[in-house]
Amino acid sequence: MPRQIDFYFDFSSPYGYFASTQIEELGKRHGVAVRWRPILLGAIFKVSGVVPIALVPLKADYFNRDTARFARLLDVPLKMPSQFPFGTVTACRAFYLIDRGDPEAAVRLAKAIFHAAFAEGRDICPVEHIAEIAAAAGFDGDAIMAGIQDGEVKTILKQAVDEAIQRGVFGSPYFLVDDEPFWGVDRLAQVEAWLARGGW
Amino acid sequence: MPRQIDFYFDFSSPYGYFASTQIEELGKRHGVAVRWRPILLGAIFKVSGVVPIALVPLKADYFNRDTARFARLLDVPLKMPSQFPFGTVTACRAFYLIDRGDPEAAVRLAKAIFHAAFAEGRDICPVEHIAEIAAAAGFDGDAIMAGIQDGEVKTILKQAVDEAIQRGVFGSPYFLVDDEPFWGVDRLAQVEAWLARGGW
Repeated sequence: MPRQIDFYFDFSSPYGYFASTQIEELGKRHGVAVRWRPILLGAIFKVSGVVPIALVPLKADYFNRDTARFARLLDVPLKMPSQFPFGTVTACRAFYLIDRGDPEAAVRLAKAIFHAAFAEGRDICPVEHIAEIAAAAGFDGDAIMAGIQDGEVKTILKQAVDEAIQRGVFGSPYFLVDDEPFWGVDRLAQVEAWLARGGW
Repeated sequence: MPRQIDFYFDFSSPYGYFASTQIEELGKRHGVAVRWRPILLGAIFKVSGVVPIALVPLKADYFNRDTARFARLLDVPLKMPSQFPFGTVTACRAFYLIDRGDPEAAVRLAKAIFHAAFAEGRDICPVEHIAEIAAAAGFDGDAIMAGIQDGEVKTILKQAVDEAIQRGVFGSPYFLVDDEPFWGVDRLAQVEAWLARGGW
């Protein structure tokens, strides 16, 4: 039986946001732990040569329509940030700063960041914004402002991205159920079937 | 209520093959006609700049695993042709040659071509192979050999590709439910929900 879902995502991915609203309940339904792993997709795109969908001619219009339609289907709010795509180094560092000591708290922070970016359309790049979002979610904003500069946190983030590349992650969201890879929020039904059947 | 599904696909797309095994039943469940539209994705990739997934570093391994897993889930045979991707001009022309007079027969031919390519792993590029596949499916192979060279059929194919580009089609399979676009076999559940609810 699978025992863990590694949930890789980029904080600038609306499909990652959609997955973040579903994955914890999915894990609970099958008694499987979810390990959240924010990554920097830009670093991975440099390896894969992939261009973000929103920047590809023809695909961009579809992307806008698809994300809006997907949000309505899931009944979750969606307000795209005016600047897109955007950098997520600060958000990732804040996550791993908390995750180092308290993974469950880090999931709360990740949800707050995703909500700010895609339900409120906020700019989550500046460190001050991440501190505000964290503070509103019950974290110590000043500690996060300081901790983001921590060399150990930077190293943890770099290791997470390297590990993702090494495991073949090339998009967001990307799920590894033990070692079985599933790419895309539209594969959550297959992730669930895999957990229910123990593979096929 | 939606009245038609336009089913765009490339004969070299295994995900198009998977969709071809599902779409007729899906249409029937909702009393909606399916219009099959084979296209030349290579011509569209020239516009979009997209690189086929099987040729992207990191993605290729996932692609092989995902297609095999998808086939097992759908319980359809899959044997990838040794040459991949491959050209489909001949297959498309044969389709439109038949489709011009008998769209239902063209669907039968399309299924036979897909089966040869992805269930048997046959090379469907040579015109002789298409004629053989067609003959085995009850068509007049000699008439197809001759008809493939018909200028009008070439024009119909070109028009189908141009129409697809104009409607924003950029991948395979790609569904337009009336004018609502859905990309990917993994969106069939959304296509079905769209038909059942009349949109959302």
